[in-house]
Amino acid sequence: MELKVSSDRIKKDIEIIGTLSRDDERGRTCFSYSDLDMAVRSYLMDQMADLGMEVSVDGVGNVRGRLPGQSDLPPVLSGSHVDSVFQGGDYDGVVGVVAALEVARCLATRDEPLKRPYEVVIFSEEEGSNFGVTCAGSKAMTGYLSLEDVKKLLSQSGMSMYDMCSFRGFDPDRIPSQKVAPGEIHAMVELHVEQSVVLESESMEIGVVQSIAGLCQSRITFKGSANHAGSTPMRLRQDALIGAARVISGVKGIVQEDPSPSVVGTVGYIKCEPNVSNAIPGEVTFSLDVRDVSQEAIDRVMHQVGLLVEQVASDCGLERSMEILGRQSPVNMSQSVARVIADSAGSSGFSCKVMNSGAVHDAVLLSSITDTGLIFVPSKDGKSHCPEEYTSTEQIAKGAQVLLSTVISLAE
Amino acid sequence: MELKVSSDRIKKDIEIIGTLSRDDERGRTCFSYSDLDMAVRSYLMDQMADLGMEVSVDGVGNVRGRLPGQSDLPPVLSGSHVDSVFQGGDYDGVVGVVAALEVARCLATRDEPLKRPYEVVIFSEEEGSNFGVTCAGSKAMTGYLSLEDVKKLLSQSGMSMYDMCSFRGFDPDRIPSQKVAPGEIHAMVELHVEQSVVLESESMEIGVVQSIAGLCQSRITFKGSANHAGSTPMRLRQDALIGAARVISGVKGIVQEDPSPSVVGTVGYIKCEPNVSNAIPGEVTFSLDVRDVSQEAIDRVMHQVGLLVEQVASDCGLERSMEILGRQSPVNMSQSVARVIADSAGSSGFSCKVMNSGAVHDAVLLSSITDTGLIFVPSKDGKSHCPEEYTSTEQIAKGAQVLLSTVISLAE
Repeated sequence: MELKVSSDRIKKDIEIIGTLSRDDERGRTCFSYSDLDMAVRSYLMDQMADLGMEVSVDGVGNVRGRLPGQSDLPPVLSGSHVDSVFQGGDYDGVVGVVAALEVARCLATRDEPLKRPYEVVIFSEEEGSNFGVTCAGSKAMTGYLSLEDVKKLLSQSGMSMYDMCSFRGFDPDRIPSQKVAPGEIHAMVELHVEQSVVLESESMEIGVVQSIAGLCQSRITFKGSANHAGSTPMRLRQDALIGAARVISGVKGIVQEDPSPSVVGTVGYIKCEPNVSNAIPGEVTFSLDVRDVSQEAIDRVMHQVGLLVEQVASDCGLERSMEILGRQSPVNMSQSVARVIADSAGSSGFSCKVMNSGAVHDAVLLSSITDTGLIFVPSKDGKSHCPEEYTSTEQIAKGAQVLLSTVISLAE
Repeated sequence: MELKVSSDRIKKDIEIIGTLSRDDERGRTCFSYSDLDMAVRSYLMDQMADLGMEVSVDGVGNVRGRLPGQSDLPPVLSGSHVDSVFQGGDYDGVVGVVAALEVARCLATRDEPLKRPYEVVIFSEEEGSNFGVTCAGSKAMTGYLSLEDVKKLLSQSGMSMYDMCSFRGFDPDRIPSQKVAPGEIHAMVELHVEQSVVLESESMEIGVVQSIAGLCQSRITFKGSANHAGSTPMRLRQDALIGAARVISGVKGIVQEDPSPSVVGTVGYIKCEPNVSNAIPGEVTFSLDVRDVSQEAIDRVMHQVGLLVEQVASDCGLERSMEILGRQSPVNMSQSVARVIADSAGSSGFSCKVMNSGAVHDAVLLSSITDTGLIFVPSKDGKSHCPEEYTSTEQIAKGAQVLLSTVISLAE
């Protein structure tokens, strides 16, 4: 008999986590290692223990709950994170953890265990809300965040990640010895909300992620001369905002004319000084975030934007600077796991789209040590990182059903 | 014996006001009704009281200090403002108040009073830094800002102008009864820094303003959809900042192509939401300030910008709104007062240029109820509304000397 995930249990879990991790403010603000986060972990660990899973917590608080298999072969993992951005929503991360737990519940009802053990994983600090480093938990697990890094990373309150982990009893000194080596995990599959409108706009139920975009984040500043908006003739102005505006409109054209159809470029942040209606802007700083699954496309766009910044600075008589704040290379998910996911979706009768992800997830880190897959479910209006973020229980259940079939295939 | 203004006293007053109204940040940030503003007012009112002037404060905090004349005929007024833009300089407004006070000091030494009373006036909230409406104090005094307006105007912190005035003990309910009627003031003369390069580039010591540019201030908002910067394809974006950038770059072209050589257009303020580097801007609001001595040119530019806003909204799939916050027609100063100023400059041996002003000053509002004159002194490099703004004490003293002679001529 085919195992079926329970929409009711999924709905209840999401509601309980939402309630446990919500304070009185707008949306859900559940930073890693907070009291709210500890309450959510505690609920989830109790659920795992009730299923007879063996629960362990590593030095940065990553939780692994293990359902034994017929053998002690390397396990199949699934999970995500429960921490959130400031005033985020109920679904980002949480959906992946709840689905992985629901898979465990279904597997626990089987008369005969799977060949391989199955583990539910909850990664700490995915959003980087505390320390400004995303996927810190999965980075520590895969060796991309060292004990020294963890000692150096400071929260806004000035407390280090090391001290916060110690305070919660996680023993961060074990980070070096707990690094997972290639071969120790057979496969990892993460379910996540899409955080975009692709699935919704094409009425697709399941997304199978092929590649995760790399990114280049930079900051551009133009300096001109702040002057009176009434008495300074146009020809004598050095208006930093006009320079910025020319680059911001130009970025769109550069990105759209690039041969890569998937490259995106975003100016999301702008700061203007003195920023009053009757003064010519003297200095404007803005962000530029360029992403694609093709590193060449990212490099081309950054090069073109660099040329445009030079051109605009020269045309408008402005000083300019362009600083790279961060880079990440594109990552491919495992093709064999992607095929298993697509087959699982197909045999359940769900529509399924092979796609890329513009956002980074814990699965990206795991892909450095094992075969990794990433399943998307639709996000209403593509909204994410905000209280309006929404995916229906029905949509999540479909994703969880695909996850269940995928885990069974990978663990048999 | 001809009265002479004192450069030393002028220098000292400007330094004291600078010190009183400066916090630890860059430049001078002295918003009306702030603690710093109250300290400056207090110093000036003490100075006036020491001269035996009768000091009164109206419902929006405009200060009038009265030096009695031989008669109770309508007085001659001179003054300006002490509030500043964010991180502005030490001279804009302050110079006019200090010169008017210095004139009072000189007049107080006369054995025989002038025929008419002389008043030093300090207008509140000229820059509009708190509520986005320039010359709010002189507007209230001349009936262009009602009690209802004052209740509606909100600062960025959400406090109304009415509440701020009440908090400072100014009794804004008296606004309607305090409106000054034509005939109640004999004449008004304001000294101000030019805020442009005309006097400096022609090596002129005194400017006599003939006309003041009219202006139209508006606020434009584009609404799109805030979404994840990585996962939203370019074609599915409704990026409010790209819309704003297209209009901001477009304004420059529209203004420069207009047949009027003196028309200027400025976007000085921009606000982007959510304003984080990894989110597509969902809503962007920006200011537009268009000025000229030709009303037709202002109207043409506003019409063209309106068409551009429509076009961009349609191209980018954005909602848009364009709200007129304030209009002011070009204004002519009194020709007879201008002649008195020019004669005063001539008899002191100062070079003098008849010119227009691109900036609006409190004198513009006063010109609706009385004969009004405006005297300019040079601004170094035309800089204004910034910490680098500078006019030498010698230049200010020349302006104050012309102001003194002008006031004596008008009040005799």
